[in-house]
This record gives sequence, C-alpha cells and structure tokens, in this order.
Amino acid sequence: MRISELAQASGVAVATIKYYLREGLLPAGRATSATQAAYDDSHLQRLRLVRSLVEVGGLPLAKVRAVLDVLEDPGPDPYAAVASALAALPPYVSNEPPHRRATEALDAIGLAHEPDSPAVAQLEAALVGLEAAGRPLDAGALGRYAEQIAVIAQREVASVERDRDSAAPDQLADVVQDVVLGTILVEPVLLALRRLTHAALFRERHPQADGG
Amino acid sequence: MRISELAQASGVAVATIKYYLREGLLPAGRATSATQAAYDDSHLQRLRLVRSLVEVGGLPLAKVRAVLDVLEDPGPDPYAAVASALAALPPYVSNEPPHRRATEALDAIGLAHEPDSPAVAQLEAALVGLEAAGRPLDAGALGRYAEQIAVIAQREVASVERDRDSAAPDQLADVVQDVVLGTILVEPVLLALRRLTHAALFRERHPQADGG
Repeated sequence: MRISELAQASGVAVATIKYYLREGLLPAGRATSATQAAYDDSHLQRLRLVRSLVEVGGLPLAKVRAVLDVLEDPGPDPYAAVASALAALPPYVSNEPPHRRATEALDAIGLAHEPDSPAVAQLEAALVGLEAAGRPLDAGALGRYAEQIAVIAQREVASVERDRDSAAPDQLADVVQDVVLGTILVEPVLLALRRLTHAALFRERHPQADGG
Repeated sequence: MRISELAQASGVAVATIKYYLREGLLPAGRATSATQAAYDDSHLQRLRLVRSLVEVGGLPLAKVRAVLDVLEDPGPDPYAAVASALAALPPYVSNEPPHRRATEALDAIGLAHEPDSPAVAQLEAALVGLEAAGRPLDAGALGRYAEQIAVIAQREVASVERDRDSAAPDQLADVVQDVVLGTILVEPVLLALRRLTHAALFRERHPQADGG
C-alpha cells in the first residue's frame, strides 16, 4: 500500500509516518519509484505498536526506540532483555540508590528484588511522596496491596510461560514483546479499573450524589 | 522560617519556591520587611504536597493548581469535588466518547460507570492499544483483573469512610484530599509492586538468569 493508504489504515497522519521513517522507528518501504514506496502489513503492525507505546504508554520517542531495539534483538538472555526493555518504560524516576524506604518495605513484606532496579526507585519515590503528604504507607498496608498484585502477576507470568513453552527458541522476541506490552499496556487498565471501582463504590454508598 | 530555611527543610530550591509563590501554588509568607517574609509549617506542608503531585503524580503545574483549588474549596457535594479533582489527574487521554470498547467491557463485567468519566476514556485508550498491539483483552481477562482490583478498592474506600465518619462536617476537605492523594500517590506503588513481582517470579523460574 502507499503511504496515504498506510495513514488511512492506521489513523496516523502522513506527516507523522514520514517523521517515524526519518527517525528509524518505522523501516523504509519497498521503493516503487524515485518518490514512492510500498508498505505492507508489517509496517502497519509496527506503526500501531509505536502509537500504543506513545499514546497509551506515554513513552517519548527516544524510549520507544530503546524498546523497539530490545524487541528486535533481545539477545540470548531473556531476563536481561526484559529488564532493559522495562527500564525504558516510564515513570522516569531520578532518585539515586540507596532506596532505603523501598528496600526496607520490600524486605518487610518478603518480596525479593534487585536494589538498583527502576521499579525500586519508583516505589521509593511513591513512598517518599506519601510520607511528605502526611499519609505514610506502613508495611502492613503495603503487604495487603502486594497480596492482590501477586495474584494478578502470577496469573500473567503463568500465561506468558505457557506461550513460551509452546514457542520455538527463535520466538524469544515474541515472549519479550509479550512481557513489555503486557506491562505497559495493562498498567492503565488496572489504574482505570481502580478509579472506576472507587467511583462505583462511592456512588453506592452515597446514592444522593449524582456526579455533579 | 526564612525562604532559605524553607528550601532546606523541603529540599526544594529557592528559585522553585519563588516560582510557586508567583504562580500562586504556595500562599505568600508573612512580610517581615520590604524584602523578606516568614514561612511556617503550613507552607512546608503545602510545598511537599505540590512536589508529590509534580514528582510522583507527574502533574503539570496547571493541573496541580486545579487539584489544589478543589482541595481548598471542595463545595457542598463531596462526590462532585472528588470527581473534579480526579479529572485533573493524568493520564490525559484525548479520545472522545462514545467509548464503545470500554463501556461494552464494563457492562460485560458488571462494573457500573458514568460513560463520560475520564477513567472510561483511559480504559478505552488502553483497550484500543492492546488491540492494536495484537493482544486484545477479552471480558474474561478484564473481569479477572477487576476482581483483584475490587478487593483493593473496597478496602481503600472503607478506610476513607471510617476516617470520614469520625470527621466533623468541616473536615470534608480532608476526606477529598485523602481520596485524591490516595489515588495519585498509591498508583505508582501498585505498578511498582506488579513490576517487582514479575521480576521476582521470573527469576524464581529462571534461576540461571542473573539480571544481566
């Protein structure tokens, strides 16, 4: 298909597609003349992936490129590949280790972790913010959150492992992609569900409130 | 205390504090001379709240102001106050209703919702992104997520209600603040726990991987 058709099929403007081509986020099409190129379904898929990472994931383009690089060439160690892809995802927390509150809290609830992982920095920033706002989260409350999240995470990891067991070794990239997309695209689902459940519970308890 | 002491106590640079004063995010101090002002603990508290909203919540300053406005003057209807404060929180999703996928999915799992709420728009964007990435989330999977999130949300709402039952009517602002901060500051905790649990489960199942 032509670039105009690719734009129509994806809902992404031609100018944006050209920008992605220049930035190397989208591979070049097959040249059909000096000024035209043909694109196929692989371009459409890639374009949708880039848009999901930008719009749903909130990634800046430099980070989109980092994620795509890992997806394209995950290397021999799936754990290292997943870790570098996850490190490219927001939030971009700038605090430096040691993350005392986070590591103490994780030790208290018995969740094994690497002290310098981005998620520990993210947890530290949130715990510091809660403390600063006068609402510190104690290990008991964190542990109760961790219990529910563990049910979710165990189901997700089991499902990825099932997919992998049935995958050929050269499909490692697919598994890494599964983990990365599952992380970044499911996060807003969880947060939206929490907000919607809060609203539903609140309305249930205060039926006179009509939402303003 | 002086502005330099406020800076030291809060860890926020003097220039940033002056910027917040100019923007009205921080009330002026008590003038002690033509060029100096005195600040107290209420300024320190407010400064920490602003920093939490910016750094942990990722809010732009215009949205910080919108949240502070609601916290300062929640009005007579707590539901309307909470709804407008929550509407100021990220993510800022630009899609327009009707949110067909989200409303159908929420109807399928039986979660009551207001079709034009920001959380429905957020869910729609995530579901569209998952579909675009070739990983559509069916009602069954969404329902399983919703079950665990409901356990979390029910506990949170019960705790806010307990606080409110013991609060005087003029402490409504505190309850609204609780809900807003609970939403924005606990979200990164949940996401960090999910990523950490994924990593821990992955390491457990692949003990040869050492994290790269």
